[in-house]
Amino acid sequence: MIFMIYQRSLWTLSVSPMLTTVQTGYGFTFLLHIFLQELSAIFFIVYISSKRIACFYLSKPQPHQFTILVRGIPSSYGRSFSEIVESFFTEYHPSTYLSHSVIHQTSKIRGLINDADKLYRRLAHIKSENRTKQNFKRDGFLGLFGRKVNLLDHYEKKLEDMEDNVRMEQNSMAEKEVAAAFVSFNSRFGAAIALHIQQGVNPTEWVVEQAPEPQDVHWPFFCASFIRRWIYELVAAVATVALTIMFLIPVVIVQGLANLNQLETWFPFLKGILSLTVVSQLITGYLPSLILHLFLFFVPPIMIWFSSMQGYVSLSQIEKSACTKLLYFTIWNIFFANVLSGSAFYLVNVFLEPKNIPRVLAEAVPAQASFFISYVVTSGWTSLSSELARLFPLLCSFIKKLCARRDGDKFEVPAIPYYSEIPSVLFFVLLGVTYFFLSPLILPFLLIYFCLGYIIFRNQLLNVYAPKYETGGNFWPVVHNSTIFSLILMHVIAIGIFGLKKLPLASSLTIPLPVLTLLFNEYCRKRFLPMFKAYPTECLIKKDREDQNEPNMREFYDNLVTAYRDPALMPVWYARNGDTHNSPLLHSEP
Amino acid sequence: MIFMIYQRSLWTLSVSPMLTTVQTGYGFTFLLHIFLQELSAIFFIVYISSKRIACFYLSKPQPHQFTILVRGIPSSYGRSFSEIVESFFTEYHPSTYLSHSVIHQTSKIRGLINDADKLYRRLAHIKSENRTKQNFKRDGFLGLFGRKVNLLDHYEKKLEDMEDNVRMEQNSMAEKEVAAAFVSFNSRFGAAIALHIQQGVNPTEWVVEQAPEPQDVHWPFFCASFIRRWIYELVAAVATVALTIMFLIPVVIVQGLANLNQLETWFPFLKGILSLTVVSQLITGYLPSLILHLFLFFVPPIMIWFSSMQGYVSLSQIEKSACTKLLYFTIWNIFFANVLSGSAFYLVNVFLEPKNIPRVLAEAVPAQASFFISYVVTSGWTSLSSELARLFPLLCSFIKKLCARRDGDKFEVPAIPYYSEIPSVLFFVLLGVTYFFLSPLILPFLLIYFCLGYIIFRNQLLNVYAPKYETGGNFWPVVHNSTIFSLILMHVIAIGIFGLKKLPLASSLTIPLPVLTLLFNEYCRKRFLPMFKAYPTECLIKKDREDQNEPNMREFYDNLVTAYRDPALMPVWYARNGDTHNSPLLHSEP
Repeated sequence: MIFMIYQRSLWTLSVSPMLTTVQTGYGFTFLLHIFLQELSAIFFIVYISSKRIACFYLSKPQPHQFTILVRGIPSSYGRSFSEIVESFFTEYHPSTYLSHSVIHQTSKIRGLINDADKLYRRLAHIKSENRTKQNFKRDGFLGLFGRKVNLLDHYEKKLEDMEDNVRMEQNSMAEKEVAAAFVSFNSRFGAAIALHIQQGVNPTEWVVEQAPEPQDVHWPFFCASFIRRWIYELVAAVATVALTIMFLIPVVIVQGLANLNQLETWFPFLKGILSLTVVSQLITGYLPSLILHLFLFFVPPIMIWFSSMQGYVSLSQIEKSACTKLLYFTIWNIFFANVLSGSAFYLVNVFLEPKNIPRVLAEAVPAQASFFISYVVTSGWTSLSSELARLFPLLCSFIKKLCARRDGDKFEVPAIPYYSEIPSVLFFVLLGVTYFFLSPLILPFLLIYFCLGYIIFRNQLLNVYAPKYETGGNFWPVVHNSTIFSLILMHVIAIGIFGLKKLPLASSLTIPLPVLTLLFNEYCRKRFLPMFKAYPTECLIKKDREDQNEPNMREFYDNLVTAYRDPALMPVWYARNGDTHNSPLLHSEP
Repeated sequence: MIFMIYQRSLWTLSVSPMLTTVQTGYGFTFLLHIFLQELSAIFFIVYISSKRIACFYLSKPQPHQFTILVRGIPSSYGRSFSEIVESFFTEYHPSTYLSHSVIHQTSKIRGLINDADKLYRRLAHIKSENRTKQNFKRDGFLGLFGRKVNLLDHYEKKLEDMEDNVRMEQNSMAEKEVAAAFVSFNSRFGAAIALHIQQGVNPTEWVVEQAPEPQDVHWPFFCASFIRRWIYELVAAVATVALTIMFLIPVVIVQGLANLNQLETWFPFLKGILSLTVVSQLITGYLPSLILHLFLFFVPPIMIWFSSMQGYVSLSQIEKSACTKLLYFTIWNIFFANVLSGSAFYLVNVFLEPKNIPRVLAEAVPAQASFFISYVVTSGWTSLSSELARLFPLLCSFIKKLCARRDGDKFEVPAIPYYSEIPSVLFFVLLGVTYFFLSPLILPFLLIYFCLGYIIFRNQLLNVYAPKYETGGNFWPVVHNSTIFSLILMHVIAIGIFGLKKLPLASSLTIPLPVLTLLFNEYCRKRFLPMFKAYPTECLIKKDREDQNEPNMREFYDNLVTAYRDPALMPVWYARNGDTHNSPLLHSEP
């Protein structure tokens, strides 16, 4: 997570010198700007990849370092998946294979456990109220007739039934194996060997990938086969593109419907209030923006939903994918939709004629400078301050408590939503890069945003949020790609503007710049991207050798065998056996 | 190589049913066509990948299966590269590492050996003539004055000097190590482990790749560093694009210069002959085409040169890369240049407006149908028959013998030039796919071409050519990609034609087809491409276990240590020591 802070400081660093040089002429600023950008890009990528390696060296042995996830296990008549995995890995990795746990289809059990969970909470709630009065209900029709039963006994009996149900389901699990398994090895290098070399002759069978951390696993999506996951991925991609391009259509329609006259027709009783000038001004001024924000509010959850449909097996992967999707969404719907301010069809049309892009952008982008300056203030500063106050989650939790009146809910420390925070920060970077030479006035506002952001997020990360998983710098490539995109966009706008101002020499001198930036990006991909994908032999073996001297590796290996058990298959315990323990709820900790 | 034959049969197979159905209407033919294409594409890709695995299982232990090439060895003060490699691999691959041979900068020795080689041949030539007359020359100015020396003694002394030179250079080799080495392992799986996992922390150091077969190594290009190779690659790519796009400019200029009037001005003595109607018709008809072919003749060597500049380390890689380049070149300069028949600038411009491509193609492509039918006959059939007769190589070798009068040259069995044959065959496939619904008359001509090709190439492969290296089906992905490209091009033309004929429904119904074809391609890439890149664990370990029972593995390992020695570093032997051996020339076999 630390990189998010660095990125802020990076931009404050690179934005301020630009401000002073912006007066001395385009050419010099341009080159200085690009040089600074790319220098800082390479500096931070070096820094973060070295941090990543250092973090790996310092880490204690962790289950996910020793484990891979195998999918597409070929089925064989008369043998369970567990046997097939066992025989395959003992045959081909005899010296390193340790254990495996096949994944089961647990959606039914999860449902049952959820119900039991709810019931248990209700029971706990009743018990806490028990001290004041006795609860009875009749067991007949609509609870009106029949004999009175003690509500407590009734629920306890129901809970008991549910417990039996869950146990029965758990025992019948053996038949519901899915063609996927977590396979553990006795060394990190052993896991890497199985991970990096194609296992079976058919590349769609024995598909291996790095296992996520045990608490990071997203259990519901293991059943899908290779081709089904591929189709899901396509569907999600198409849905994302459709949502991104079409998003503004319903927004505009709703904004059109929700004007002053419509409101008066729909809600005649508001007529008196709406005729007040202040109120009508407020509504005409803020209602469209409110509607936009209301719609925007639903986008991150939808993107997360799309990503989780794609068949990722961990929260971290889902969030990373949603982060990229949301970045595209933001750039398209906030930057391009505002700049080109046409219908979705017009927007798409512009990008189908690549020759005209610079001209169209050069005409439209400078006109929106004041809008984006106010956007930095209204959206950027506001989001930062609301982040600090966390007013919205506070309200939510208050309302929830008021409505549900569940005392059993324990307080969970929230995790930072990377997928919605990173795209918004990167969008401000994009604004800074594209507008720095068109309207340098945006820079002080951005500078304040980044300084504030640095302080506020540093506080939030240290004191408020608890990470759900270790990102290991995996979000950095998204930041890097977005920076490169911003630079290219800036070059294209510059080409268009020099063309409009009848400076063909400047325009054609700018043409090599995007090419050079792309080359720079290509170099970074070759030089640094592999370091974000996997750890090299050198690190793995050094770390493995260190472990050999570790005294408690025996214990670690024992734990490793059970680390990747589905939480739905853990034995269920009931609080009925004693009311003293309040927090250990339904599930035992492994 | 076998796949080239299959590909021919594939096309004969898929072209003939199309011919019968082409009358029954566009829609049905279209779908049948695509279905057949993709069915045959998947059938052949399955067939060839299974052949590839079968070939691997049947192969004897070969050095390149046990060896990887390491480049970018980090230098360390006071230690030679050989020591660094030794210590790195004994540390990180202690159980599998066998030996290594660092590569040396041998360009100087290669030059010396070449000279000595020439001298030796001359000596052999003189010796063979020796029986008829004695050869003397004077050792003074211009050979006119001074004492007479025996030419034989003179050359032998020179050869001796050269031999000493070469030995001296070879002994001083230790200092000229290059940061690259062939590293051998004691099992195929061991080599695969080192190959597939990034070795060093810095991804530009310890860059590993599969070693080529020992006789396939292209020695001159090992010295380049990571970044230098990357720049070379870029330069080669730019040069290829420039050559491809600009090729027609000089051709058109030369064709313009070489018209009848110009020839009369330049060569007045030809006036009489040129005034004959037959001759003038022949010249106006054939001269432009002759000039085009003369220029075309130089393209494959230039492409090979570009590819060898790119830093590939084996002939097979160079040929594969040149094959792709030549395919682009052919499609651009023969298909698009003829179809759109405009200047290079106009051509490029067409592709900058993607929306207009279907319309422009639909207008231009049908007009050229008769040209391409005659192209199949004049270029396709002719090239096949000249391939059978091998007239051109015969003439070349005859002229060479006549001029150089070197009797020492031993006859070498030629290798098939994949890089020039595959693109030309694929181009005819493209013609068949794009023209089958515009002018079905092309199909019988193509059918004859493919049938003839099947017979002729089968004969050539079995009886004429000797393979220089085992391709292992590595050219198939090029064939597959070209097929997909042809299909997409056909779809685009169809969309344009339906649009021109005012059939908007048909046109918009055709739009999903390219998308579906691209999805099909994507599926094939996921499902089959990995099988052409590397062998899976399952095969490697099975094969390794088979080897353990092999009696002569000991001997094989001994040979493996010296398999990758640079031929320039082999000890030089001279024929002087005895005239009995005629064929073992300068170099000893390892």
